[in-house]
Amino acid sequence: MIRIGVDVGGTGIQIGIVDDQNRIIRENSIPTRTDLPFEEQVRRIADSITATVEAEGMTVSDIVSVGIGIPGIASRKTGEVIKCPNMGWHHVPFREIFNRYLDKPVFIDNDANVAALAESVAGISAGTSSSVFITIGTGIGSGIIIDGKIWSGAHHIGAELGHVIFDLNGVPCSCGNRGCLERYCSATALIRMAREAVAEAPDSLILTSVGNDSSRIEAKTVFDAARAGDPLALSVYHHYISCLAQAIASVINLLDPEVIVLGGGVSKAGSFLLDAVKREYPQYVIFNDQPMPDVKLAVLGPEAGIIGAAMLS
Amino acid sequence: MIRIGVDVGGTGIQIGIVDDQNRIIRENSIPTRTDLPFEEQVRRIADSITATVEAEGMTVSDIVSVGIGIPGIASRKTGEVIKCPNMGWHHVPFREIFNRYLDKPVFIDNDANVAALAESVAGISAGTSSSVFITIGTGIGSGIIIDGKIWSGAHHIGAELGHVIFDLNGVPCSCGNRGCLERYCSATALIRMAREAVAEAPDSLILTSVGNDSSRIEAKTVFDAARAGDPLALSVYHHYISCLAQAIASVINLLDPEVIVLGGGVSKAGSFLLDAVKREYPQYVIFNDQPMPDVKLAVLGPEAGIIGAAMLS
Repeated sequence: MIRIGVDVGGTGIQIGIVDDQNRIIRENSIPTRTDLPFEEQVRRIADSITATVEAEGMTVSDIVSVGIGIPGIASRKTGEVIKCPNMGWHHVPFREIFNRYLDKPVFIDNDANVAALAESVAGISAGTSSSVFITIGTGIGSGIIIDGKIWSGAHHIGAELGHVIFDLNGVPCSCGNRGCLERYCSATALIRMAREAVAEAPDSLILTSVGNDSSRIEAKTVFDAARAGDPLALSVYHHYISCLAQAIASVINLLDPEVIVLGGGVSKAGSFLLDAVKREYPQYVIFNDQPMPDVKLAVLGPEAGIIGAAMLS
Repeated sequence: MIRIGVDVGGTGIQIGIVDDQNRIIRENSIPTRTDLPFEEQVRRIADSITATVEAEGMTVSDIVSVGIGIPGIASRKTGEVIKCPNMGWHHVPFREIFNRYLDKPVFIDNDANVAALAESVAGISAGTSSSVFITIGTGIGSGIIIDGKIWSGAHHIGAELGHVIFDLNGVPCSCGNRGCLERYCSATALIRMAREAVAEAPDSLILTSVGNDSSRIEAKTVFDAARAGDPLALSVYHHYISCLAQAIASVINLLDPEVIVLGGGVSKAGSFLLDAVKREYPQYVIFNDQPMPDVKLAVLGPEAGIIGAAMLS
């Protein structure tokens, strides 16, 4: 018996067959086609699942369930996608339409939530019953696991750590608020800090390493320059680490999960990021003379989206 | 059959007999005596429970359980009080000592957590399975209810909303951090804002109504002056409401409970506070075109401490 995990993204849709050991035994992908009518988009996903299963020498009768991770919000009860801007989906009856093409139990949840679930069952936080997964990329995504289950809120609008106010009246956010946490802790934030810094110090390795073209600065540019000992890069890096440490401590002061898991592009900086964060976050935890959550790096990578979706039930 | 709820505070300890309708049928109190040895303090509580029950014409055999709410943190599993600074308790085996004097099941939790539980079972949030209770007083306390149970974290160090970073590098907090949420949303914060404001505008009703003695400004002083139309008071009030609305929206963006309950001294401002907050918080909620948590005022008042403690199990 197999479960299907689907990771829906703005450019591609990844489909995976997941076995009962939470391993992906076959993966497939189709390009996202937001130009098609919604029903056609859903049919393409269902057809691709059938094709993937048959390519593995199985049939749809082997499928126990289908889980869908989306960059948006959905109702667990009704199977409705409430909002998924990248796909142009707004209050669409995903499960109902999907079942016309493939009649299996369908579960839909946010992509950061399913990644959190995957790490908590088959990844770095396996064996814990509570964890908070923070994915650090263009923005900040998060997933909260409590009592072994995804907590996305009573109206499925929670787990948006990136939009907690972190700096009152601070940097404007694309959401319309000011001072959202993701303006200080995302890759975008790190790049903004670096660009602001090099404007004052153009001889920094941050800038010279990208041919003096500040539009080419990435998170990795800053980490590499800091590793190489560039003073300006170290200053930006320390400021960014301080922000991230305070964000992590805030999550601990409010939610105190067993473990906090860092994923996403910025987490590829590995121990250079993690060790620095671990040195700093305890000072911001209120009860820091007590046992407190550990902070770890995610291990499943992009596959967490498929594996976690397949775990939905 | 009755349950006992005990609300431990720095000046007094309230003891209540609670019936199976969650009503207090008899209440008693003893002064807090931190000068006595710990075991003596515990014995006084146990003795007072026995006396209170006997005064009601009952015996200790009628007691099902004893719940203790403390201004600190405790281990639900071991019955140990981990930390309770006001009482001078640090890693003390409360349950073990208590059972020497009264051999009943004993449950201990933080006072804001038990108030959250009380409101969620017998108060304004009755009938919900998730809620966040925010008590606005000298500081900001909070209690999180998920799936009908208190969530205080894996190490019992969570639910400290007051110490989430809200203004990066902002106002110094007594905890040692800067920019903690309670520096912007507590009664103390409102008073600070008012004092700063009157220093520039000494003719404000805020100041004249307290005989030009700014040390006498309380939260109520500001609300009264704002209600009376004093321009400076209105400006302070609007700034404070904006902070509180952003704090509430942050809780929604992260936790999305069914309802958010406001309690504590500041909530006595009633609809003058609530209506303003309700007008403003939705603009800071990310998915504000969806159903979202309502915000309500607590109804149980100080009795929530006794009632909620008695509910612990």
